[in-house]
Amino acid sequence: MTPPKPPSPPPPPVPVPNPSTFDPTSSATHDSTCPFCTISKTYPPYDPSSPPPPSSRSISPSLTSPNPCTFMLLSTPVVIAFLDIMPLSPGHLLLCPRSHRPKLTDVTPEESAELGRYVRVLSAAVSRATGIRDWNVVQNNGAAAAQVVPHCHFHVIPRPELRDKRAERFTSTMFGRGQRDELDDEEGEALAAEIRRAVGEVLKEDEDKSEEEKRAKL
Amino acid sequence: MTPPKPPSPPPPPVPVPNPSTFDPTSSATHDSTCPFCTISKTYPPYDPSSPPPPSSRSISPSLTSPNPCTFMLLSTPVVIAFLDIMPLSPGHLLLCPRSHRPKLTDVTPEESAELGRYVRVLSAAVSRATGIRDWNVVQNNGAAAAQVVPHCHFHVIPRPELRDKRAERFTSTMFGRGQRDELDDEEGEALAAEIRRAVGEVLKEDEDKSEEEKRAKL
Repeated sequence: MTPPKPPSPPPPPVPVPNPSTFDPTSSATHDSTCPFCTISKTYPPYDPSSPPPPSSRSISPSLTSPNPCTFMLLSTPVVIAFLDIMPLSPGHLLLCPRSHRPKLTDVTPEESAELGRYVRVLSAAVSRATGIRDWNVVQNNGAAAAQVVPHCHFHVIPRPELRDKRAERFTSTMFGRGQRDELDDEEGEALAAEIRRAVGEVLKEDEDKSEEEKRAKL
Repeated sequence: MTPPKPPSPPPPPVPVPNPSTFDPTSSATHDSTCPFCTISKTYPPYDPSSPPPPSSRSISPSLTSPNPCTFMLLSTPVVIAFLDIMPLSPGHLLLCPRSHRPKLTDVTPEESAELGRYVRVLSAAVSRATGIRDWNVVQNNGAAAAQVVPHCHFHVIPRPELRDKRAERFTSTMFGRGQRDELDDEEGEALAAEIRRAVGEVLKEDEDKSEEEKRAKL
């Protein structure tokens, strides 16, 4: 007897953005006071399966100056990801829709699928880049839920093994209390390059596996 | 000037499962010791945009007896959702892939997109059903990250406005410490029916909106 076979929908095409049509001055879907919209407006999309080299101007961390540096990890027409500037642990990153959406319920169905797809890819990538095998995914909606920036975002937070006291501090800090240290620029740049590379690697492995499965069905 | 237009992929077809082909005895993609696999094997898929009536045997909470009752909220060929039996707040629910996947990185790309899609739908539905406007989405991977059941699951946890002390207890309890009360069966049944209804409502609104946008483009 076989399990209930889900009808296999074809994998949606990997979006291959055309950076030359990107208009960084546009703000049609952005909120001018939102720091994540500033990032979204500054960094053009690129093909995540072959990220630009670390020296590329298109991902230069200082483009958001005088605001804090931005260490981009992913930039598609629909979603962006970057390192949290006040990380709870090495590799703590944020994934959000490119457009300004306050809560998860403001996101379109297509964006939500894309967020789901990339939160898995980024989880795998950050685990490879940091060597930390456990992690939390956290997405807060509204002030009572400790949302600080009102632009929907998923935290991916690596969880190194910690002893009791530090683990407790970690958990309470996750929801906005306690001390968080600022990201060091040099470390951020190296880590971001490693995560972008791992994202490309994961996407290629996914594609290879999907091709293999297609062949196996023939 | 216009913003970078993401290439609009067509919305994937809403899976309309055929419950008559569902084989509850199958365990090919399941782990026999996993409580979420027990739920997955017990409850057949249904069309989430028109959920079965509360009296339907196919969603009867006692089908998992002698294990705790299960209050199903969603059951597709790919994902299932149900009320947490030790809720942190009214409406606290879990969403997971139907197949046994220990961590988010074990999930297939297609499953991850489906999880992303439904975590938004369920967020909207639970907010409508409970009237609580703020909520957390939490997904833990591995023991160091407080994952208890090793079958990948997203928590959706409504956050009523709480005063300092209770809010603190809430946060620390979210990661596995402190007291959580058991779900009352009668309340669970009524709330689950309300959430299933709201899921159908949200999906229909999404579909209507998508149709509208298609017409506007013509």
